Amino acid sequence: MVSRIDNFPTEEYLIRIARTRAEMEKRGLDWMVITDPSNMAWVSGYDGWSFYVHQAVLLGLSGDPLWWGREMDTRGALRTVWMPDEAVHGYDDTYVQNPEKHAHETLADLIRQQGGGKARIGVEMENYYYSAAAHRALSAALPEADLIDATGLVNWQRAVKSPAEIEYMRRAARIVEHMHQTILEVAEPGLPKNRLVAEIMRAGIEGAEGHWGDYPAIVPMTPSGIDATAPHLTWDEQPMREGEATFFEIAGCYRRYHCPQSRTLFLGHIPDKFREAEKAVVEATEMALEAAKPSNTCEDIAIAFNTTLNRLGFEKDGRCGYAIGLSYPPDWGERTMSFRRGDKTVLEPGMTFHFMPALWLDDGGIEITEPIAITEQGHECFSSLPRELNVK
Amino acid sequence: MVSRIDNFPTEEYLIRIARTRAEMEKRGLDWMVITDPSNMAWVSGYDGWSFYVHQAVLLGLSGDPLWWGREMDTRGALRTVWMPDEAVHGYDDTYVQNPEKHAHETLADLIRQQGGGKARIGVEMENYYYSAAAHRALSAALPEADLIDATGLVNWQRAVKSPAEIEYMRRAARIVEHMHQTILEVAEPGLPKNRLVAEIMRAGIEGAEGHWGDYPAIVPMTPSGIDATAPHLTWDEQPMREGEATFFEIAGCYRRYHCPQSRTLFLGHIPDKFREAEKAVVEATEMALEAAKPSNTCEDIAIAFNTTLNRLGFEKDGRCGYAIGLSYPPDWGERTMSFRRGDKTVLEPGMTFHFMPALWLDDGGIEITEPIAITEQGHECFSSLPRELNVK
Repeated sequence: MVSRIDNFPTEEYLIRIARTRAEMEKRGLDWMVITDPSNMAWVSGYDGWSFYVHQAVLLGLSGDPLWWGREMDTRGALRTVWMPDEAVHGYDDTYVQNPEKHAHETLADLIRQQGGGKARIGVEMENYYYSAAAHRALSAALPEADLIDATGLVNWQRAVKSPAEIEYMRRAARIVEHMHQTILEVAEPGLPKNRLVAEIMRAGIEGAEGHWGDYPAIVPMTPSGIDATAPHLTWDEQPMREGEATFFEIAGCYRRYHCPQSRTLFLGHIPDKFREAEKAVVEATEMALEAAKPSNTCEDIAIAFNTTLNRLGFEKDGRCGYAIGLSYPPDWGERTMSFRRGDKTVLEPGMTFHFMPALWLDDGGIEITEPIAITEQGHECFSSLPRELNVK
Repeated sequence: MVSRIDNFPTEEYLIRIARTRAEMEKRGLDWMVITDPSNMAWVSGYDGWSFYVHQAVLLGLSGDPLWWGREMDTRGALRTVWMPDEAVHGYDDTYVQNPEKHAHETLADLIRQQGGGKARIGVEMENYYYSAAAHRALSAALPEADLIDATGLVNWQRAVKSPAEIEYMRRAARIVEHMHQTILEVAEPGLPKNRLVAEIMRAGIEGAEGHWGDYPAIVPMTPSGIDATAPHLTWDEQPMREGEATFFEIAGCYRRYHCPQSRTLFLGHIPDKFREAEKAVVEATEMALEAAKPSNTCEDIAIAFNTTLNRLGFEKDGRCGYAIGLSYPPDWGERTMSFRRGDKTVLEPGMTFHFMPALWLDDGGIEITEPIAITEQGHECFSSLPRELNVK
């Protein structure tokens, strides 16, 4: 095949697959139908904005994984996957968004051709790209197979990053730093929010230090003032105002690897309560990051953070972090580990997280967050941005 | 409630709901669980990038629709929906991406509280945001209810746009024109593709003629040369080259309403076969658009296009257009009508489409497309860009 993007050496893909197969064997699975685009990319190298139609990587216990998708996207698959051309299978266009039939019927045919008609097949039940209808169609077309929920099976194999992946995330960190620097340069009272977002996006795709910017899996979240009490509103044309805080929840992205980081900008004189919230978040973050080391658990970080925050008179419900890495829209989280009470996953060197202690106050939001990697000794902060509220 | 964005007057939402309820009654449905974010926005006004967690609008045959989602997103709901605060319901954060339990269990509780425990409930089986696991959880938690596939029920009610919606799409058209003008100004041999995409995105968010730009549901597709034979590859840092064609599949977006339009740019001297392909596409487009009028069908447009194209020595498989309007990632299509053989939907004034006759040749792609609205007399082209290959 003609490889357009030689993302990782084939050996790295083979290591990933061996890890995935070990877990499949543990669970007694003969095949995995991998529909999460980030899992597909991680296993096969496939990269394209084609996940709005049905596609998958079919992984058995031996042989090459098979790419399956819309016929017109086989051309993109041939240019991005590491496997030989014979591993790429397309279905015809009449299956696209056609209520009369379902693309997964053709996936069932492929599975049967591979001898999997009566097999135990793992599917990702909880995924944006494995709809209830896809499951119904695949089940009906493979009446003698066992479809078994294996949500997260591949995601969990991605938790510990290789040195090459860590390097990609460091490059993404340079990009998110550049995006935040752009904000500090451009933001000012009177600037319509969409103009600011336009500059943030430009900076993110422009890239930094010679590393080109890929599209982050989420658009910039940039709410100001009272809108910042609501975490997931996007922008409009309202001007930035003196006396208002704006938080910027953004990520740099390098070859689909994300480094998210949030900062908060206050225009004008900061009220005391924002300074108090800043002090509490920074202090609680320090305590949390002290707990970010191998053999501690995800929960330990959340407890260290929440205990300190409560002592300082603030509260945060919800998780304060999640695993990050390779992602596609609509989420840059890996959907495995969370920093929250009850998550007893043991931290290992190479795991990567967005430590994300967002506080939503009654009349504004404050986010000062840190993307980190667990190392042998403790952790590495990917970004070198000062850990503080920005004021302008 | 404090409405942040007064998108449409409440009366328009009530008309939309009446239309939806008529179809629900026709199908004997007591409730609709609306999970498609564009359907949710169309019915309730809700707007936020929170669709990466489970959320829905619950619509019965009477009373206000109910917004249901993650507790932290109720704040964004309160600021964007037209319904009173009591219509907004949150579930706690422990349900987020937690394999131990499922958020749809809390939706089942809400449905039961509304008296729907034994009802006939429509669900959108074929949607990115209604996973196989969501369906399993909702079915298990409502053992006495009938969950009935109503994929597309709401989407179809959206097919005919109101004058206000058409106006939003005209504004989006100004934005996509501005994006294409930016491309013509900036593109040149040697320019890394990501730098060009950075400028396209900036132009799109900046907006045009006083209309701010919202994020399109798909990132710019901008493949050059041989990569352009693959329709859904995104960019990297490779420089643009003389002698290569690049197609730009992009959309302007105004308050979630999309106006997609593609153009192709050739740097340097155009080979004859590109000129021939251009001539064929433009002529076939003219024939197709002559068929774009009320009482004709979607299929008529495809047949007019394909017949002309074949006569001129070219072939295109796959559909040559689809319905457009209000959208969220990962797709700006409405997933209802397609311009392809077999789609016998009768065209009506107010329907809006992206006529999208992309040709992928052996060594490059050509896209010259037209966003259109069906009018009483025939059709309106939203954009005034010249229908031709661009050369620089």
